[in-house]
Amino acid sequence: MNLLFLGTSAGVPTKSRNVSGIALRESKGKGWYLIDCGEGTQHQVLRTTLSLNTLKAILITHVHGDHCYGLPGLLASAAMSGRTAPLTIVASQGIKAWLETTFSATELALPFALEFVDASTLPRLAFEQVEVETFTLSHRVPCYAYTFTEINIAADLDTAKLERDGIPRGALWGQVKQGIDIEFAGKRLRSSDYLIQKHPPRKIVIAGDNDRPALLAQACIGAQVLVHEATYSQALAEKAREVGHSYASLVGEFAEAASVPHLVLTHFSPRYQFHPQASPSIEDIRREAQSVYSGSLYLARDFLQFSLDKAGCLVAMTSE
Amino acid sequence: MNLLFLGTSAGVPTKSRNVSGIALRESKGKGWYLIDCGEGTQHQVLRTTLSLNTLKAILITHVHGDHCYGLPGLLASAAMSGRTAPLTIVASQGIKAWLETTFSATELALPFALEFVDASTLPRLAFEQVEVETFTLSHRVPCYAYTFTEINIAADLDTAKLERDGIPRGALWGQVKQGIDIEFAGKRLRSSDYLIQKHPPRKIVIAGDNDRPALLAQACIGAQVLVHEATYSQALAEKAREVGHSYASLVGEFAEAASVPHLVLTHFSPRYQFHPQASPSIEDIRREAQSVYSGSLYLARDFLQFSLDKAGCLVAMTSE
Repeated sequence: MNLLFLGTSAGVPTKSRNVSGIALRESKGKGWYLIDCGEGTQHQVLRTTLSLNTLKAILITHVHGDHCYGLPGLLASAAMSGRTAPLTIVASQGIKAWLETTFSATELALPFALEFVDASTLPRLAFEQVEVETFTLSHRVPCYAYTFTEINIAADLDTAKLERDGIPRGALWGQVKQGIDIEFAGKRLRSSDYLIQKHPPRKIVIAGDNDRPALLAQACIGAQVLVHEATYSQALAEKAREVGHSYASLVGEFAEAASVPHLVLTHFSPRYQFHPQASPSIEDIRREAQSVYSGSLYLARDFLQFSLDKAGCLVAMTSE
Repeated sequence: MNLLFLGTSAGVPTKSRNVSGIALRESKGKGWYLIDCGEGTQHQVLRTTLSLNTLKAILITHVHGDHCYGLPGLLASAAMSGRTAPLTIVASQGIKAWLETTFSATELALPFALEFVDASTLPRLAFEQVEVETFTLSHRVPCYAYTFTEINIAADLDTAKLERDGIPRGALWGQVKQGIDIEFAGKRLRSSDYLIQKHPPRKIVIAGDNDRPALLAQACIGAQVLVHEATYSQALAEKAREVGHSYASLVGEFAEAASVPHLVLTHFSPRYQFHPQASPSIEDIRREAQSVYSGSLYLARDFLQFSLDKAGCLVAMTSE
């Protein structure tokens, strides 16, 4: 699995950071998922190898414009690029009504179906390579986190167990290998009980805007990576009296308590600059998170890409 | 007056061209007008010296997404940058309803008033330095051209005429100089009849998508510059069987017949590439227009800037 940050600024774009958008790629093939779609996301996609034809689903964390104003244009461009495959959109119900009004007001007829899923029902969706689960966050409007867990992982037969249970080699073993449950000696046996996955399932949690990271405790069980906003450092958050966002140490403390091995912070206030001597600097956020979190910490920037390997290690890669 | 192209691609953005957006700056001060606002227009503005606080009006030519999907984000960013001055929006009525739905769906409350003007009433609006007129075009949806004519041009007193008409020097001459109409010998006299403008008014015509350039005959009277789409060359327009757009020679022939001294083509199909050897190349459009138009021809590209000087000459400038 692969993460590609398309936008890492909160609220408004800056010259070097677009508003929110993250691409999560499946480990095999060209399929990908888009989490949030701020204005200009399609422009960022143009600068990558991603194609709008292989996008499997768009998942919107909440209705604020910096997380969804890029939807109409991205869908229009997918239409013009010849997409015909249906597209799943997971979002608050308000997004569905807004898109329908937009299509009608701007005379846009998509040549592919949109399959809306209401995020407030906390859907669990199975795609070919990943299962998506939805969790509730705390923000000024209903807001969600999505977890992506690898499924259908290649597996070896647990031959010792098969032999111990007296299941004969041949057709039955073949069915088990394919993940098909079998009937043996009048009992139904689950293939998963006789398979050893070649590696533990990879799992990534991607959260929207949220001022209570602890809400993600259950979502983070078994996850190797948590992607969470850190709009501010604690000092600036207090100064801004901002409601609904997290600061670096709040997220770091949660990730430490939840033992998440890799934490990627994003969605930085546009006030933060790259230069370590700037005030405020992105480095303030890094230092604050590092002071409470002992895992591997990364600060996202646009076009930064990560690969989560089969061993569950997150590797930062150079841009495309 | 100054023109700055923020987007010159038709339908979808490319790596080098954004979708439609043109900034027209007044000759004095920092005031400017935005004609069309495709997705990503605010991102382009970030790369210029333009400020969302000095924007006087946004004029949308028609409801297609590549001309208006940048509106919600640009307005949200103006709000976050602290704008409080009211903003005029001239557009089809559908845009007003769509924006109101968008604000409500995404919980955006602007701290400044929007003054909507329905383009279908063909409004004539006077700002401090320019007067805007609206003209109807021919496209798949209602579409408009806007003309920008300089007003309140510095003027000298026509002293010969004042003396000939026996108007005494002093307070009355002073009022005339300030553009105030006067009462003299029982008659009301118009100050404009006794003033000589220091230069002819500058006038720029900016048209939306349109397959009948001849509709602009009246709009182009007295104009030094026509900005018009040339989505295709004639050969490609016929091949694409596109309805509602112009090709290069159609626009060139009209500009020649209307004796417009400067023609700027824009809104090129993304199929056209810069490289002269590419097929199709932007140069195909240039050649075709040049074969029928004898004035000064320019092909717009993103961030290309033009200054229309007091003598009515259009000068291409290097990017900011």
